Amino acid sequence: MGGSVNEQLKQRAQRVIPNGMYGHMSVQMQSPRTPQFFSKAKGAHMWDYEGHRYIDYLCAFGPNLLGYAHEEIDGAYIAQMKQGDSVTGPSGKMVELCEAYVDQITHADWVMTCKNGTDATTMALMTARAHRDKRKVLLASGAYHGAATWCTPVPKGTLPEERAHFIYYQYNDVESLNAALDEAGDDLAGIFAAPFKHDFMTPQELPTQAYADAVRRACDDKDALLIVDDVRAGFRMERNCSWHALNVEPDLSTWGKSLANGHPLSCLMGNDRARDAAGSIFVTGSFWFAAAPMAAALKTLEIIQSTDYLERTVAMGERLRDGIAGISKDSGVPIHQSGPPQMPIIMITDEEGQVDNKGCVAFCDKLLDHGVFFHPYHNMFLTSAMTDGDIDQTLEAISKVVPALAR
Amino acid sequence: MGGSVNEQLKQRAQRVIPNGMYGHMSVQMQSPRTPQFFSKAKGAHMWDYEGHRYIDYLCAFGPNLLGYAHEEIDGAYIAQMKQGDSVTGPSGKMVELCEAYVDQITHADWVMTCKNGTDATTMALMTARAHRDKRKVLLASGAYHGAATWCTPVPKGTLPEERAHFIYYQYNDVESLNAALDEAGDDLAGIFAAPFKHDFMTPQELPTQAYADAVRRACDDKDALLIVDDVRAGFRMERNCSWHALNVEPDLSTWGKSLANGHPLSCLMGNDRARDAAGSIFVTGSFWFAAAPMAAALKTLEIIQSTDYLERTVAMGERLRDGIAGISKDSGVPIHQSGPPQMPIIMITDEEGQVDNKGCVAFCDKLLDHGVFFHPYHNMFLTSAMTDGDIDQTLEAISKVVPALAR
Repeated sequence: MGGSVNEQLKQRAQRVIPNGMYGHMSVQMQSPRTPQFFSKAKGAHMWDYEGHRYIDYLCAFGPNLLGYAHEEIDGAYIAQMKQGDSVTGPSGKMVELCEAYVDQITHADWVMTCKNGTDATTMALMTARAHRDKRKVLLASGAYHGAATWCTPVPKGTLPEERAHFIYYQYNDVESLNAALDEAGDDLAGIFAAPFKHDFMTPQELPTQAYADAVRRACDDKDALLIVDDVRAGFRMERNCSWHALNVEPDLSTWGKSLANGHPLSCLMGNDRARDAAGSIFVTGSFWFAAAPMAAALKTLEIIQSTDYLERTVAMGERLRDGIAGISKDSGVPIHQSGPPQMPIIMITDEEGQVDNKGCVAFCDKLLDHGVFFHPYHNMFLTSAMTDGDIDQTLEAISKVVPALAR
Repeated sequence: MGGSVNEQLKQRAQRVIPNGMYGHMSVQMQSPRTPQFFSKAKGAHMWDYEGHRYIDYLCAFGPNLLGYAHEEIDGAYIAQMKQGDSVTGPSGKMVELCEAYVDQITHADWVMTCKNGTDATTMALMTARAHRDKRKVLLASGAYHGAATWCTPVPKGTLPEERAHFIYYQYNDVESLNAALDEAGDDLAGIFAAPFKHDFMTPQELPTQAYADAVRRACDDKDALLIVDDVRAGFRMERNCSWHALNVEPDLSTWGKSLANGHPLSCLMGNDRARDAAGSIFVTGSFWFAAAPMAAALKTLEIIQSTDYLERTVAMGERLRDGIAGISKDSGVPIHQSGPPQMPIIMITDEEGQVDNKGCVAFCDKLLDHGVFFHPYHNMFLTSAMTDGDIDQTLEAISKVVPALAR
């Protein structure tokens, strides 16, 4: 593969980008054959520079909710771009979009748009601290809430002082939550909770009702703000905040990735209780008020409201999960599946159920030959653009590569 | 104006956005008549919802370098969007763009793309601290480097701990720089410097050679990194880093706003000395690798390289500056102009040269009636899409409104 276009691009990138690539898009921890660059994407598929097509189970790590290069959504983007995108003031589309979210999301009374998921979580952190001028913030250990100085999972280049008033608890563990609450005492500003546990290199866990109820109650008791970080899972679990199904409404929720089906938009939503605090912080960004992504987000929301995109995505996820369970059983190769079927993590384990890291990498490596793009460590994402045919091709590929994993 | 579309949008926004708007796009500190929303933008002009056209001297606060709705640039954006924008991996366009910047920007050996200007300055901060694992960072007092927790100008919702290791000096003041360096001792990680002093509500200052030389020498002496924050001024001063003209090359430079003429893109550039440190930090964002803004940035750079956009923009700025100086002289109304002519701040003062805040707001207010959009406190931006006719119309408007300011 040394002379492949992908390999040439990687070599050129080594010169002009530190380590050749960075962040969640570096394939450094995947098999060496994993394409780093892609030339084209449409629907549920993407193509590498050698012309190979892949069924893409990463969906750009979330943004591809309804299919790449979606004509209706991209059409709305382009029409607004021609009218006015980044201008000296926002367009009326911003008001329309914020109204539409307030109508759609039960807990939301207001919205602030921004650009990165990290912008939204940072604004949530600041709003929680501004609410009653308190300092302590509870975070689930190992949870990802972005890559700002206060939250990047690799603290190189940051200061311990920036995390001085964080207290960590174990997701779904009410006892550890209570210990953290004791430690916070009267100084609790807020609690961050992912909609479900989707940590890197770790099997996923859905939230227990007891845990969700406990964080809500703690925030009520201490006049602190509950933040559900829906950047990753937003509109892939519910047509509402992901904890709506648990009957737990946060004070703040953070959104990004899928909002405009790949166009750059994120936001913080909040209830009236949090409005004054949100209005008291100073945050902004050069492109946060751009109208074209908002037009695309309005169209995305329209499709979310008017189609069965979610039920179809879940059905594809279940078809995949059931098929893999069958292959695992028939072949005797242990495959651990966790998380919501439409956002699964699929891991090769040993007989005792321990994750086999080499096995995970080898599994994804072999699937590449069959036009299937999986990730060994990160949770994956399905899109409503997937078809039964895509899932069947994926299952066929898995059934072909699994025997080679049994040693 | 109560029943105007703008007023209706403002009322609706009050319900669904905290304070009705936020950040640099809130018109709260401008005159109450200032339009908050705009319906259309083309070239150097924008239109409010009542159909009034304005010559726009904010240029979206910088992004509009070459004209709104630029057909060639937007065409490149759309073509790449159809091919693949936010995908599971970057496109080869990312390599092309980073190579193009490394070729164009003297000090740059590598590039990391991101989305907000604040992303770039935050990455610069982290890189400086990662470089030799030192902590102290010098910042010019009052300088704006973004709105993250470590740098937002209104610290509400942030912790003093997040700024624990910052030391502030006065821009252009080598003595105060030296005092800050003494305080940093052996723990100096880096120094931030704006290309020129462009602080809010303050006359602007170009950098002195002595100041620029001193920060470069200090960073060399202490093995710290010099950061020129070119987010606001990038490609409006030079076709290179803004301090290239001073013969001072930074280790890191931060860019945003104008890179893709309004499409969302920012980046950190650095030299080989800073490469390992930049490669050691973990930063990422959902849309940082999107290809469409990179295609637009490549086209923008092509125009930067092949046209006289910069000379024309400067010439328009000088025409405006000279004209205003004449009007001020003839009318006896003191108008203070500072900064580069293409990024001016234009302020009404009293006889002693003290800024007259009410006068600044009234000046901008009256210009609205004549189709000219100025900002009372923030530096302004010209675009190469402006024509002699636009400048003449602006000068005519100014000569009409200035007599009313003389009391």
